[in-house]
Amino acid sequence: MHVADAPHLRVLRLLRDEGPVSRAELGDRLELTRPRLLAEVERLVAAGLIAEAGMAASRGGRRSTLVELDPRLRFAAVDLGASSIDIEVTNGRLEPVATYREAADIRSGPRTILHRVNELLHKARTDGAYDRLDAVGIGVPGPVSFRDGVPVSPPIMPGWDRYPVRELLAREHGCPAVVDNDVNIMAIGERHGGVAHSVDDFLFVKIGTGIGCGIHLGGTVYRGVDGCAGDIGHIQVDANGPVCSCGNTGCLEALFSGSALARDAVAAARSGESPALAERLAAALSVAENQGDDEQSEPPVTVTARDVAEGAAEGDVTCIRLIREGGRRVGGVLATLVSFANPSMIVIGGGLAQLGHVLLAEIRSVVYRRSLPLATGNLPVVLSELGSRAGVTGAAVLASDTAFEQAS
Amino acid sequence: MHVADAPHLRVLRLLRDEGPVSRAELGDRLELTRPRLLAEVERLVAAGLIAEAGMAASRGGRRSTLVELDPRLRFAAVDLGASSIDIEVTNGRLEPVATYREAADIRSGPRTILHRVNELLHKARTDGAYDRLDAVGIGVPGPVSFRDGVPVSPPIMPGWDRYPVRELLAREHGCPAVVDNDVNIMAIGERHGGVAHSVDDFLFVKIGTGIGCGIHLGGTVYRGVDGCAGDIGHIQVDANGPVCSCGNTGCLEALFSGSALARDAVAAARSGESPALAERLAAALSVAENQGDDEQSEPPVTVTARDVAEGAAEGDVTCIRLIREGGRRVGGVLATLVSFANPSMIVIGGGLAQLGHVLLAEIRSVVYRRSLPLATGNLPVVLSELGSRAGVTGAAVLASDTAFEQAS
Repeated sequence: MHVADAPHLRVLRLLRDEGPVSRAELGDRLELTRPRLLAEVERLVAAGLIAEAGMAASRGGRRSTLVELDPRLRFAAVDLGASSIDIEVTNGRLEPVATYREAADIRSGPRTILHRVNELLHKARTDGAYDRLDAVGIGVPGPVSFRDGVPVSPPIMPGWDRYPVRELLAREHGCPAVVDNDVNIMAIGERHGGVAHSVDDFLFVKIGTGIGCGIHLGGTVYRGVDGCAGDIGHIQVDANGPVCSCGNTGCLEALFSGSALARDAVAAARSGESPALAERLAAALSVAENQGDDEQSEPPVTVTARDVAEGAAEGDVTCIRLIREGGRRVGGVLATLVSFANPSMIVIGGGLAQLGHVLLAEIRSVVYRRSLPLATGNLPVVLSELGSRAGVTGAAVLASDTAFEQAS
Repeated sequence: MHVADAPHLRVLRLLRDEGPVSRAELGDRLELTRPRLLAEVERLVAAGLIAEAGMAASRGGRRSTLVELDPRLRFAAVDLGASSIDIEVTNGRLEPVATYREAADIRSGPRTILHRVNELLHKARTDGAYDRLDAVGIGVPGPVSFRDGVPVSPPIMPGWDRYPVRELLAREHGCPAVVDNDVNIMAIGERHGGVAHSVDDFLFVKIGTGIGCGIHLGGTVYRGVDGCAGDIGHIQVDANGPVCSCGNTGCLEALFSGSALARDAVAAARSGESPALAERLAAALSVAENQGDDEQSEPPVTVTARDVAEGAAEGDVTCIRLIREGGRRVGGVLATLVSFANPSMIVIGGGLAQLGHVLLAEIRSVVYRRSLPLATGNLPVVLSELGSRAGVTGAAVLASDTAFEQAS
């Protein structure tokens, strides 16, 4: 049974999501009596969370004072990918005041990666982005115990199992911290500022290096009993399919994901089946040869999802086929999840969302054909609006929620 | 964000689930101050919901008065199946005081079926089961808009789409009514009085004439945006499979369900592949011939899931193979749902649960092999305890919750 959140949370979230509001309007919107509202506002001003911001335009009677989130509020939002660190420092309204993005291999382990995260955050302070942080939110590419603030048996994060990520970040920055799965924070981000704005029940499907699903039910993220709900990349879709990095056979992400698509694209380029990919592979090889082999640590020369997207846009039939086959695989799994969960929207994000219309059209076709008509009668299947910013946006939302909750 | 339910709901549910309790213990258990508790008790006595029940044993100081649900409370619980009506009239503790069960074809339409339900309930009053009903709960074999109290596009219930079931029952019996999907009420029943007692996140999989799934997440039934969450019977599991009653090809329930199993069992009996089934089919034919053909409306002579279960118990290899193949199909779908929803238990119920250990063993084997290790580390897959009573038990729980909520 859901009951309305505490008044201070409702005040703070409204100011975060809508900006400065007059006291009079705040009372009306939140249905708080005037004395109750005044007490809340006074308490939140004293706590350094909100501030007065001049007078509002008259509504006929006495002019009312505007209130806003304290302009000094700062949240750190961190999105760790398999091969990247994304950081935003935001103000109270979650607008970025500093942004950092760099390559990093999650397999370097938690000490190396979190050390670099801390360096970047301290650099942000030196750069003048903040004096002190009010909360840190971080997403990691694996299952997380949300309650304990630690990764749990993450398949692609050696050394991170039960590493005290939340505790270390909180200690380093002297503020609350919160840890979640990368796909969950993307879903939260898309609901805050993207295509799923105000949608209560939706699935956010990330198709990137791997595949995962953020599950938003009844207005909140559903994380499952062990924190691994939505881990759909290792659903077996073809018993005779290729062996997956997890050791099983025919997993969804062994058939269609960033790495699976690159594998298939290289094969199609080498065999000459795809002229568009063959041309791109040749160009990449020639660039690599001109650079010499000094950079031994660079990834092997290859063609990627971007090349497949470009080839498809040029009409290369093999590129179109690769995307369609992938869409059919993903669509088959989503049809099952739609029959099961009956959501009101599916959002497709992650690196392979760049495959665009061809991918979406195939996913839609399979989902609509195979799910219950009742469940698909009004089911938009759409691309993420925030793209690569979905993760940091969601991490900032989580950070602010955590700071606001601790203000009670 | 979850906040504790209102005090009156907590008092009433505790008395329903645990029986008479002293005022002192009630205050302790619900962490209510003495004045608050006294006020609630007084109000609920005045509303005719609870009553005093003598003195409790001394706890050292003054003896405390026992309170219990009013002994006159009565709930009607109705479970409509594809081919049956099950009714229980219960007291406040949900113990049956009258039970009715008869065959009925849901396709006769809502007027005929609800007329019969009302007749049986009026008969219960004549039989002395109640003076007045406090609420009616009913489950129907199809998707339901829980909010509106009507079936929505139910595939096997012609004439029931948007039929005002809740409104008509409430008017007929002069009390609140509540309508839900049959699998949801089974899940609720199993959580109240069965194997899922106090489990917050579990899936109840009904394998009967059709296949469906009740989804219990975070302590409450998840119904989806259109009320059709859990409708997993029409997930396509084999693109080359048989045509389903829904018109699609290779749906789960076209491959394994009561009717699919009977179809396969008759084929195995006729071809002589299964001696156990051939023997049973011959016996059924001889009974039918001795009876003559006066009863033209009887179902055609056949062998059923029960025959397959018996054959398997005798070691008939075809019967065992049929059950294993079905278990493999169901297990494949459940592996996907486990990766997605990360529940803490799976309960198997419905008519085909009688296939017992062979079915469970196969489902377990597939789920454990194909889902994430983290999600299956501690995932019991167990049979329903309540069997055919799961539905009426859940309907009684829903009825009582509805009556209690309206007492605020």
